[in-house]
Amino acid sequence: VVLGGIVLSSDMSVEGVHFRREWLSHREIGYRAAAAALSDLAAMGARPIGVLASLAIPEQDAGDPVTEVMAGVSEAVARLGGVVLGGDVTLSPGPLVVDVTVVGESAAPIPRSGARPGHELWVTGELGGGAAVVRQLLAGHDPDPAARPRFAEPTPRTREAAWLAGQGIPTAMIDLSDGLAGDAAHLAAASGVALVLEPAAVPVHPAAGSGEEGLRLALTGGEDYEVLFTAAPGTVAAAQAGFEARFGVRLTRVGRVVAGEGVLHDDGSTLRPLALSGFQHFHE
Amino acid sequence: VVLGGIVLSSDMSVEGVHFRREWLSHREIGYRAAAAALSDLAAMGARPIGVLASLAIPEQDAGDPVTEVMAGVSEAVARLGGVVLGGDVTLSPGPLVVDVTVVGESAAPIPRSGARPGHELWVTGELGGGAAVVRQLLAGHDPDPAARPRFAEPTPRTREAAWLAGQGIPTAMIDLSDGLAGDAAHLAAASGVALVLEPAAVPVHPAAGSGEEGLRLALTGGEDYEVLFTAAPGTVAAAQAGFEARFGVRLTRVGRVVAGEGVLHDDGSTLRPLALSGFQHFHE
Repeated sequence: VVLGGIVLSSDMSVEGVHFRREWLSHREIGYRAAAAALSDLAAMGARPIGVLASLAIPEQDAGDPVTEVMAGVSEAVARLGGVVLGGDVTLSPGPLVVDVTVVGESAAPIPRSGARPGHELWVTGELGGGAAVVRQLLAGHDPDPAARPRFAEPTPRTREAAWLAGQGIPTAMIDLSDGLAGDAAHLAAASGVALVLEPAAVPVHPAAGSGEEGLRLALTGGEDYEVLFTAAPGTVAAAQAGFEARFGVRLTRVGRVVAGEGVLHDDGSTLRPLALSGFQHFHE
Repeated sequence: VVLGGIVLSSDMSVEGVHFRREWLSHREIGYRAAAAALSDLAAMGARPIGVLASLAIPEQDAGDPVTEVMAGVSEAVARLGGVVLGGDVTLSPGPLVVDVTVVGESAAPIPRSGARPGHELWVTGELGGGAAVVRQLLAGHDPDPAARPRFAEPTPRTREAAWLAGQGIPTAMIDLSDGLAGDAAHLAAASGVALVLEPAAVPVHPAAGSGEEGLRLALTGGEDYEVLFTAAPGTVAAAQAGFEARFGVRLTRVGRVVAGEGVLHDDGSTLRPLALSGFQHFHE
């Protein structure tokens, strides 16, 4: 929500739904919860001011784990901008719960609703890496060390998105928490348009593998913390080299906006609905 | 925390720690969680702007209970001021968890640190009513219907505290969540002074009973959602009749500030440490 230049958002992470204790250290649990919330600011192109972190923690974890979770929150905030503004710590008779509320500022937050027919569709970074790590963990394998940070210490694109917003480039934007296909559907619905995805153009993270499985993880995997945005024709291309040099992050055009609704697939001759649904968290 | 006139605070309520499902309706659970968070604004004399409510909810409660908890949050906000600004809903594999972040505004938030020797110590309302209801519920009794709202639908003193702050009266303030004795200790520590409590002056809620047990609940019971504040001599008395007529809430002088530390008891001839500790939530 937006409040006279102040932007607020909350994101709750629950053990057994969003993470498992055997997959992450307490510090990483805190880092990841804060990163997930900060990604909501990236979606609006807002600059982080700070976070409030509320923790419900099982009695046997009182003490060091509380300190470590909070240290992880602080580390994410230190890395991405802002300060820890407060929070609450209480006992939990069940799972570890971390709720992070982020406060940011933006003179003109980017909405989800500004995509118009003729606009281009772009995405930051590479997709599917975080989901590939979750897949490995669920299968009981040690995750690829090069890819593990994509899951354990993701870097939401707050800086990149605020820079793009400062250049006046995005007309609509969303962060990728449910997977490219699912979040594209949210953007399309909010804007009252259809988004045409070009699967062959989607930048797949190396850890997700090549071929159809890599593309499936990229489209439906979630856990990416990249941003998807629309822009008037040519405006991204003009800024692309400067962006990539500044941030070391790719910008890739993955489609376009047309009149209609939903997420479509262009097979070269016809537009059809994209037959994929968003990522379901691993909760059984 | 205070951010250029914007005040933020979070308060997390956990099933089995702060409430039991058999004691409260889902609507009351939401109302009470929001009221607890809004009470943090009362402590600063800040005016509510809005709340963000995050909910972790067991799978079997998805649907109507989510709607009812959120309706309770909305009702508290509608009654006390502000709007629902956002939030998050997720599954919980364990208890129901409600985390409410409140946003308020105040040009000059009242700190906990402004009590000085010579100031008077005042409290709003009557104490021990909420704790008396909890005691009845823990004993398996139906609570006194006249007192039940003190626990199920408490009214934090946001309006009253903001009015007092607007008059420039409180020099330090805190809301009573841990019990008068425990929260007085917090205020004393933050101000670097001692607070002298006069137990005979403490306004005990009728439901808490008379005599020593009533006083014990009032001093240590918690759950009161009243505010305790210090003020320069005579400033409250000058405003008291106007306050009580306006809000229908008592103001009672319960002690004074002296040089020293901790919470003291004046037995008429000597000052001794008050021998009571704060309320422990009913979590076993």
